[in-house]
Amino acid sequence: MSERPRVSVLGLGRMGTPIAVAFLDAGYETVVWNRSPGKTCGLAARGAIPAGTAAEAVAATSLVVAPLLDYAAVRETLGPAGSVLRGRTVVNLANTTPDQARDLAAWIGGHGGDYLDGAMMALPETVATDAGFFLYSGAEEAFTAHRAALEVMAPAHYFGDDPGSAEVHDLALLGTGYGALAGFLHAAALLRSAGTDPEVFAPLAARWLRGMADFLPELAREAGAGQYANGASTVDLNRAAVDSLIGLSRAGGIATDIHEPLQRLLHRRAADGHGADSFSSVFELLGPKPNSPLYEK
Amino acid sequence: MSERPRVSVLGLGRMGTPIAVAFLDAGYETVVWNRSPGKTCGLAARGAIPAGTAAEAVAATSLVVAPLLDYAAVRETLGPAGSVLRGRTVVNLANTTPDQARDLAAWIGGHGGDYLDGAMMALPETVATDAGFFLYSGAEEAFTAHRAALEVMAPAHYFGDDPGSAEVHDLALLGTGYGALAGFLHAAALLRSAGTDPEVFAPLAARWLRGMADFLPELAREAGAGQYANGASTVDLNRAAVDSLIGLSRAGGIATDIHEPLQRLLHRRAADGHGADSFSSVFELLGPKPNSPLYEK
Repeated sequence: MSERPRVSVLGLGRMGTPIAVAFLDAGYETVVWNRSPGKTCGLAARGAIPAGTAAEAVAATSLVVAPLLDYAAVRETLGPAGSVLRGRTVVNLANTTPDQARDLAAWIGGHGGDYLDGAMMALPETVATDAGFFLYSGAEEAFTAHRAALEVMAPAHYFGDDPGSAEVHDLALLGTGYGALAGFLHAAALLRSAGTDPEVFAPLAARWLRGMADFLPELAREAGAGQYANGASTVDLNRAAVDSLIGLSRAGGIATDIHEPLQRLLHRRAADGHGADSFSSVFELLGPKPNSPLYEK
Repeated sequence: MSERPRVSVLGLGRMGTPIAVAFLDAGYETVVWNRSPGKTCGLAARGAIPAGTAAEAVAATSLVVAPLLDYAAVRETLGPAGSVLRGRTVVNLANTTPDQARDLAAWIGGHGGDYLDGAMMALPETVATDAGFFLYSGAEEAFTAHRAALEVMAPAHYFGDDPGSAEVHDLALLGTGYGALAGFLHAAALLRSAGTDPEVFAPLAARWLRGMADFLPELAREAGAGQYANGASTVDLNRAAVDSLIGLSRAGGIATDIHEPLQRLLHRRAADGHGADSFSSVFELLGPKPNSPLYEK
């Protein structure tokens, strides 16, 4: 048995190629497979071992990392490899729904394999840097056993044995980002109507957004504890600002619906007597409490 | 006439006190006034010159910086100073609406003064650092003449002679931030229902949000040019993700309305045949084009 750690990489697309390179650079014996085989050539020149089929790649190593396109590609790729899954850990890095992740975990588990679901919060250029990070869930022992290898790709965060959990966390992060991007595009439309080009606004908005990022731990502390009494920025203050923003948008012919849900939440908190609470207290209106029976695996 | 530059600071609250300190530290002869005079003592000990009335402070210097609470406080404070406004530049740093800023500009202009509206994108602890920044609009010559003094407080950005413009830009930045914060609180509610504490999620969300901040210039370039053909992230891809996020929220009993406006925008772009365009192309649906007659001062 080789002294060098081994890994297989299935799928050499936008993310798969830098991932294979990262393993090679980290000294891993790296088996690579891609549906169109041409993509393996450059990696072979760097020392990777091309596999003729996905099943061969799976059979060759105990850790199989699969940065494939989507659920269908994972099923299609691993379908013929069912008989060699036993004892392997498959790390699915495709973009799937939580239910699809659970489905894959059941299918791979049924063949005696361990399943880890991974969500790549990274770009091709941030693979193997600290600028990105990957989320994982599923087989905990497999995660622990392979953590060092997984961290070759990016810092790894594990969120429990529900295989769908990494995807839930992925969607939660995307949702945070979508809020920011929708808010930015709305603001850019408002300012363009006032004569400021989006490109002039973007650097200021980026600075502001970094400030908001620094503010999240305080919001989280308040929301996590349900304690909103001493916040720096109150419901009433922000209600007035959101009202101004929506009024200005309406007057300028800019869509107002992006901020209307927050406006309703702030008005509802104020109407319920919580106008002096921290802004973050709108959290109380968003959904069930911990251990809610509404969210079950 | 003194060699040292001079400035008056009206209002020594949360922001006014560090602003006065910043001017003192920068070597300015600093005249200070506050409605309740006790607040001037500490500053006097550091070399500030307390004024007995706001009118005295205005009369003492050509640059008057007013970090007061709101429009009403500005009117109340400057009301008795009308006769000494001639030749002065008043920088209103209170939180006002764009219309209130225009109203103040007209009133001060009527008394022969120059009006600059300022919006403080800063916290007390980031005054006189590069971590915050102030937005200005109004009298351009006054801005240019006093820019060095203004930058004692924070980097200064000027947005044209419409006195309301700084406040419009302020609201646009707040709106970008509100999008992020609402997205974060929604995500925190979703994850809490899945067993992850908001405080565990916050550092990841902050990292993700900083990545979004880095992404804004690209979005702005696309939106500014109206060119969406080669974006890294398409309408269709993000539509699927937003659909998943909303589906998951609904299943978990979490409010879905925060993301529904973006969902509608993405579906509308897809239905209009723009599914392969960049995500940023939802900008096209948000409001009027440049030089719209809908937005007038």
